[in-house]
Amino acid sequence: MCDTCGCGDDHQHIDVEKKLMTKNDEFALKNRDYLTRYNICALNFVSSPGSGKTSLLVKTIEALKDRYRSAVIEGDQQTDQDALRIQSTQVPVKQINTGQGCHLDAHGIGHAMEDLKIHDEDFLFIENVGNLVCPASFDLGEAHKVVMLSVTEGEDKPLKYPYMFHASSVMLLNKIDLLPYVDFDLGCCLQYARQVNPHLTIFPLSVKTGEGFEAWIQWLMQQK
Amino acid sequence: MCDTCGCGDDHQHIDVEKKLMTKNDEFALKNRDYLTRYNICALNFVSSPGSGKTSLLVKTIEALKDRYRSAVIEGDQQTDQDALRIQSTQVPVKQINTGQGCHLDAHGIGHAMEDLKIHDEDFLFIENVGNLVCPASFDLGEAHKVVMLSVTEGEDKPLKYPYMFHASSVMLLNKIDLLPYVDFDLGCCLQYARQVNPHLTIFPLSVKTGEGFEAWIQWLMQQK
Repeated sequence: MCDTCGCGDDHQHIDVEKKLMTKNDEFALKNRDYLTRYNICALNFVSSPGSGKTSLLVKTIEALKDRYRSAVIEGDQQTDQDALRIQSTQVPVKQINTGQGCHLDAHGIGHAMEDLKIHDEDFLFIENVGNLVCPASFDLGEAHKVVMLSVTEGEDKPLKYPYMFHASSVMLLNKIDLLPYVDFDLGCCLQYARQVNPHLTIFPLSVKTGEGFEAWIQWLMQQK
Repeated sequence: MCDTCGCGDDHQHIDVEKKLMTKNDEFALKNRDYLTRYNICALNFVSSPGSGKTSLLVKTIEALKDRYRSAVIEGDQQTDQDALRIQSTQVPVKQINTGQGCHLDAHGIGHAMEDLKIHDEDFLFIENVGNLVCPASFDLGEAHKVVMLSVTEGEDKPLKYPYMFHASSVMLLNKIDLLPYVDFDLGCCLQYARQVNPHLTIFPLSVKTGEGFEAWIQWLMQQK
């Protein structure tokens, strides 16, 4: 930042941010210890608003439910609409409203896990606030971040928001049923994503039509 | 936050945040004074990633250019792709890369305005980082925030991200050419948006096909 025009509070700001991140990492470590002890695979779903995370979760839980137990933590600035959609699948769900906050943090996740009393679940699915920026920096104790991108958002997003794609293990490229109707270069998008993170496992799919969905479910089952 | 488990740095955090916001507001005031003195209408465009802000700006500048002078400030975490797209319209443009930052701030906008040497422009278009959360809290000195939502993101977004829709004067509902291919309840979306902010001026449009675009241009011209 600028040294010449009086905007000089950055050092104090950075100190407090570092302290908060350290605190968050401590809570994340506690969450991860608990999840490992009970052999629960926790996934932290991140994306822009409206990429299709909740629809994916509903369909994923349905696909797994004969063989695996799941629980869900839903993050949103406001409303419990997503939690209500998840409730229809009969799995335990806890809504966290962040208000003006832009991400879930490990401390809130710890309390939500307590409230849900999870211990014999196979999967904990955490749907973060729709935000392709801030949740990248917050470890919640998850096994993996799963970033969702929809083809309506444009192929350039991995380059423009690289931190999230770098922090994630899996990228779900959703809404491929809309490819005929939008200008979206699939090859380019995959190349950009791998440029930012060569280790990304990528599943192009359509939650709506089910195309490509089975490969994602197979990957999930391999995590157990 | 929790009083019982040691996550107790919030007061210090809130103090620093308040200080930063006050500082931002001071810079925003300076920007607004300058823009008012030179009769420049500044608009701060906010949305999720990929809603279509850059495409809108390119088309808007083209529509205005015989009668009005425009300049653009582009915000992105990384890349100068959007600035390059704007450059094709021949108007002055300045890219700000925020790195891990999640929003533009008034301090950075002040410096960008200096770099652009704007004084005889009619419009300053500021494209914020794609993020439906954090930019809601940062005044840049603009006349209006313009929030863009695309129909592929779902009709519930005004309720789930109310702060941004509350902070905005105008809502551009983009990609209406895709309405036949997505599950999107237009009436519901307009009702949610007006529930959060009864004063919103709303333009449903498609930047791609041009449908509804003229009403937006008319509104812009009324600001001068």
